[in-house]
Amino acid sequence: MSVSQLLKERVRYAPYLSKVKQASELIPLFKRGQYLGWSGFTGVGAPKVVPDALAEHVEKNNLQGQLSFNLFVGASAGPEECRWAENDMILRRSPHQVGKPISKAINAGRINFFDKHLSMFPQDLTYGYYTRDRTDGKILDFAIIEATAIKEDGSIVPGPSVGGTPEFLQCTDKVIIEVNTATPSFEGLHDIDIIAPPPYRQPIPYTRVDQKCGRNSIPVDPERVVALVESKKKDRVPDNTPPDEMSKTIANHLVEFFRNEVKQGRMPENLHPLQSGIGNVANAIIDGLTDANFKHLNVWTEVLQDSFLDLFENGSLDYATSTSVRLTQPGFERLFNNWDKFKHKLCLRSQVVSNSPEVIRRLGCIAMNTPVEVDIYAHANSTNVNGSRMLNGLGGSADFLRNAKLSIMHTPSARPTKKDPTGISCIVPMCSHVDQTEHDLDIVVTDQGLADVRGLAPRERAHLIIEKCAHPDYKDLLKDYLERSEHYAKKHGCLHEPHMLKNAHKFHTSLMETGSMKVKAWEPVE
Amino acid sequence: MSVSQLLKERVRYAPYLSKVKQASELIPLFKRGQYLGWSGFTGVGAPKVVPDALAEHVEKNNLQGQLSFNLFVGASAGPEECRWAENDMILRRSPHQVGKPISKAINAGRINFFDKHLSMFPQDLTYGYYTRDRTDGKILDFAIIEATAIKEDGSIVPGPSVGGTPEFLQCTDKVIIEVNTATPSFEGLHDIDIIAPPPYRQPIPYTRVDQKCGRNSIPVDPERVVALVESKKKDRVPDNTPPDEMSKTIANHLVEFFRNEVKQGRMPENLHPLQSGIGNVANAIIDGLTDANFKHLNVWTEVLQDSFLDLFENGSLDYATSTSVRLTQPGFERLFNNWDKFKHKLCLRSQVVSNSPEVIRRLGCIAMNTPVEVDIYAHANSTNVNGSRMLNGLGGSADFLRNAKLSIMHTPSARPTKKDPTGISCIVPMCSHVDQTEHDLDIVVTDQGLADVRGLAPRERAHLIIEKCAHPDYKDLLKDYLERSEHYAKKHGCLHEPHMLKNAHKFHTSLMETGSMKVKAWEPVE
Repeated sequence: MSVSQLLKERVRYAPYLSKVKQASELIPLFKRGQYLGWSGFTGVGAPKVVPDALAEHVEKNNLQGQLSFNLFVGASAGPEECRWAENDMILRRSPHQVGKPISKAINAGRINFFDKHLSMFPQDLTYGYYTRDRTDGKILDFAIIEATAIKEDGSIVPGPSVGGTPEFLQCTDKVIIEVNTATPSFEGLHDIDIIAPPPYRQPIPYTRVDQKCGRNSIPVDPERVVALVESKKKDRVPDNTPPDEMSKTIANHLVEFFRNEVKQGRMPENLHPLQSGIGNVANAIIDGLTDANFKHLNVWTEVLQDSFLDLFENGSLDYATSTSVRLTQPGFERLFNNWDKFKHKLCLRSQVVSNSPEVIRRLGCIAMNTPVEVDIYAHANSTNVNGSRMLNGLGGSADFLRNAKLSIMHTPSARPTKKDPTGISCIVPMCSHVDQTEHDLDIVVTDQGLADVRGLAPRERAHLIIEKCAHPDYKDLLKDYLERSEHYAKKHGCLHEPHMLKNAHKFHTSLMETGSMKVKAWEPVE
Repeated sequence: MSVSQLLKERVRYAPYLSKVKQASELIPLFKRGQYLGWSGFTGVGAPKVVPDALAEHVEKNNLQGQLSFNLFVGASAGPEECRWAENDMILRRSPHQVGKPISKAINAGRINFFDKHLSMFPQDLTYGYYTRDRTDGKILDFAIIEATAIKEDGSIVPGPSVGGTPEFLQCTDKVIIEVNTATPSFEGLHDIDIIAPPPYRQPIPYTRVDQKCGRNSIPVDPERVVALVESKKKDRVPDNTPPDEMSKTIANHLVEFFRNEVKQGRMPENLHPLQSGIGNVANAIIDGLTDANFKHLNVWTEVLQDSFLDLFENGSLDYATSTSVRLTQPGFERLFNNWDKFKHKLCLRSQVVSNSPEVIRRLGCIAMNTPVEVDIYAHANSTNVNGSRMLNGLGGSADFLRNAKLSIMHTPSARPTKKDPTGISCIVPMCSHVDQTEHDLDIVVTDQGLADVRGLAPRERAHLIIEKCAHPDYKDLLKDYLERSEHYAKKHGCLHEPHMLKNAHKFHTSLMETGSMKVKAWEPVE
C-alpha cells in the first residue's frame, strides 16, 4: 500500500515499509484465546488503531464474547481497552486497568483480572509463569506496540510511556507496530535497560535519578515484525481538576512534616527522590512543594503528570524520571514547545527499572500514595472496596511503599456516600483488604492531621492514628472499638494488636447495609 | 584486672586489654530507658554475660520493672532476653523475638514490640527513625556485641551471626564487647558490607552467592569501646526434631513441583538459590532435596540449620550464605571439625545484605516459609494468631517472599487444638492478619497437595487452593463459604474477590468460642 511521507520520515528501517498495512487487513490474524501484550502505561502510549479496528470488527459482526483475548498491558491502556471490555473481548487481564467498563466487567466476573507488582509483572511473564497452560511453548502471540519513530536497526522509539514493552518484545511470537504520526517523535527521552533473567542478572546501575546507562530505543527482532500501521490518534488524557481545599490541607501537613524531617537531619534539604501517585491529593502535594520553596528536588516515580511541568518551570525540580509522562493535551504541547529544555531533565525507563525495589531502596525514595482505606494499625487497602470490588489494581504502590526510605499514605479522612456526606471513614478498624502491611508504612496523613508511626508498637500506632487522622465523626467510634478490643485482648492474652474479629469489619458491613460506616452497635464479645 | 591467656590470644588490639572488665562492674553504666543494640540473630551470637549480670542484679535487688530498656536485636537473641522479659527489663523491642516469656510479655501489653522487615530495620534505626523522641541526638546508648576475635585494628570478628551489628556499631554512643572464648574463632567466615545511607548508596554488588566483596570483620571506633568482657557461655540451640510424615509429604509435593519446573524450562537444573525458614517442614524440604538428587544447589538465606550440613556433605550443595548459622552443639562441632572444608563454602553477611530485596530479586531466589495461615485468595499471616496474638514476628519472610522468583508458603493443612485433632484449618476464608499479600505468593503447599496460583485471578486461586491444599475436614466448609460469597458478590457487583465480610473471620471466632474452626452456621447475608 502507499506510505505517507510523514510515516517514511519516522521509519528509518526500510524493510518495515514493505510491511505497512491498514489495521483492517490484520483482523484475520487474531483468534480467540490468543495472548496479547500492548504497549502503554497509565493511559498513554498504548496502541489505538489495531485495537479499534478489532473492536469495530466485533461490533459489526456481533462477535461479542467470541473474539476474546488474554490481554497484558504494563499498566492501564487508553479508552480502547474499555471498548474491548464493553464488547467482551477480554478473557484475562493483568496487571492494572482504568475505566468503568473494564472494572465493571471484572466485578461482574466476565474478566479474569489478576494483579501483580508492576516491577515484577513483565519479568514473571517472560519466565512463562502466566502461560503455563499453553502447549505450544509460546508466551505472547502478538505484541502490539506504539512507536513514535523506528531507528535504522529496526528498533522502536516509544512514545510517552515505556512500561512493559521491552519484555513483551522479548517473549512474543509476532509484533505489530503502530507508528504514531499525530504526535512528534519522543526520540531522546528514553533510557531502556534490557534486564537479563537470573542467574545472569546484573545490578541495575543507577545511583542518581539523572543517570542514563541504557539504549534510547527498544530492540526488536525485525523478523518477528509482521505489520506496521500508521496511527493518527492522539492520547486522550482527561483534564486535571485543580486541587481542592481538602487536598491542600493534606499537602500542607506533609510539607510541614518534610520541613521538620530536614530540620531533624533525617532528610537532606532537597529531600530524597519523590514518588507520587495520580490524583487530586498527589497534585496538591506537588503544588505544595512548589509553594514551599523546596529547591533541587528530584523525582523517581512511575508516572509524571502536568503538575511536574510547573515544578520544573519554577526551578524547584532538577530532574524527573518515570516510565510514563501522562500529560493532558496542553501538557504535551508545553513539553514539545520546550523540548530542548525538558529533554535534559526527563527520562523514561521500563517499569521494571522505574519500579525496581533495588533502585528505590538505594535512592531512598519518598513514596506517596492514596489508598482506599487505612486501618488503625497502619495496614492499607489499595485495591478492593469492601474487600471484594476491584477498583484499578495495585499499580506500583507496593513497589514504592515497601522500599522507600519514607512511606506515606495520604487520604481524605472521610468520603461521602449518597446517604451521608461523611458515610465512609478512610480510617477503619481493620482494612477489608490488605495490600500494604503495617510493616511498610511510616506516615499516615489526612486532612485532619499526620501520624508518624515509625518505631511505634501497634497499640501506640492505633491511638495516634485515631487522634491525628480520623474524621471527627468517627473518632469516638474508633476509640470505642480500640478500647473494647484492648479490654477483650487483655482478658485473652493477645494485647499485641487487639481486635474484636466479630466487629473488625463492622464499619464495612454497616456501609453496605445502611450507606454509612457509622456503626450503631457492636456485636457482643466475651 | 588479670586477663586470661585465651582472651589475650583472641584480642589482637592491645588497647582493648586495658578495658577488660567483669560484667558486674558494668552495671552502674545502665539506666532505665536507655536504648540498647545487641548482636545476635536467631538465637546465636548474642551477648550473654552482660545481659545475665544485669538480670542477676535486677533479681537480687527486686528492680523488676524499674531497670528496663529499649532493646533492639537483629532478630532473636538467646535465652538471656527471655530472662529479661521475665524480669520486666524490656520496655520496647524490635524486630523479632523467640521464647515464651517474651511473647507472653508482649501479649500482656508489658513490652511495646514493633515489627519491621529485617532488611530495613537496621537502616531505619541509623536514620534515627526509632529514636525520634530522644532530645540528646543519640540513637543507641550501648551496643553489646559478641565477638570471637578482635583484629589488629580493633575491629570485631563476630561469631555465628552478623545480623544488625554493623549498623548498631555505626549509631551507638558506647560499645561493650563480649569476647567468647568458649567457641573457636569464626574468623574468615564473614563478609561485611558497610552500606552507606542515601543519597550515597551504591549497588550491593553480589551476582553469585559465593562472591565476597566486603571485609572479614566489623569496623568499630575504638574510642567508643568502653569495656571488653570475656564470655565462656556457649550458644544453646535446642535439638532438631526429625521430620515427621506430614513434613515429608509436604516436601515431596515440593520436590515434584521443582522437578517439573526444571522440565518446563522455568528453572535451571540446579534450581535458583534457596531461602528456607526454620522448623520441621523447612528441614524436611532440605532432606527431600538431598534425597531427590539435586546437584550444585546454592543457598542465599537468612539462617542455616544443621540440615544444610548434610546437604553439603552429600555433595548436593555448592555454597551457602546467610546472616546466621544456627547450629546445635553437635552441628557446631561438625562445622569446626571440618573447618577447612566449610570455610570455602559458607559465608555470613549482615542482614541488610542477606535479606536485601536487591540481591534476592537479582539472584531469582526460591523463597520458602511457614505461615500461621493462608487464605483462599493466597494472602498469608506470618505473625498474629487470630489477628492479635504475636508469635515471633515477621522476620525476613516478606523480604524473601516479595522478591523471590518463586515464593512458596508451606504449611500443614490443619493443626490440632485441645478439643479437636483438626481444630485449626491453615487454609481460611480470610486471613485474620495479612503479612504477605496475594500479590506476593506463587505457590501454596500443604500435606494435601500443591496449588500453583501464578497468573490466576482471585476466584481461580480460591477454587484451586481449596481443592489442592485444604484438609478434607474443611474442604466442604471452604467451598460453601466461597460459593455463598460468589452468590452474594454476583448480586452486589463485586465478583473480583468475593467475600462475605460478616463471615470472613467466622473460622477464627468459632475457634475462640468452641476450640475448633468447624463453623456450624454462617451469619445470614443478603
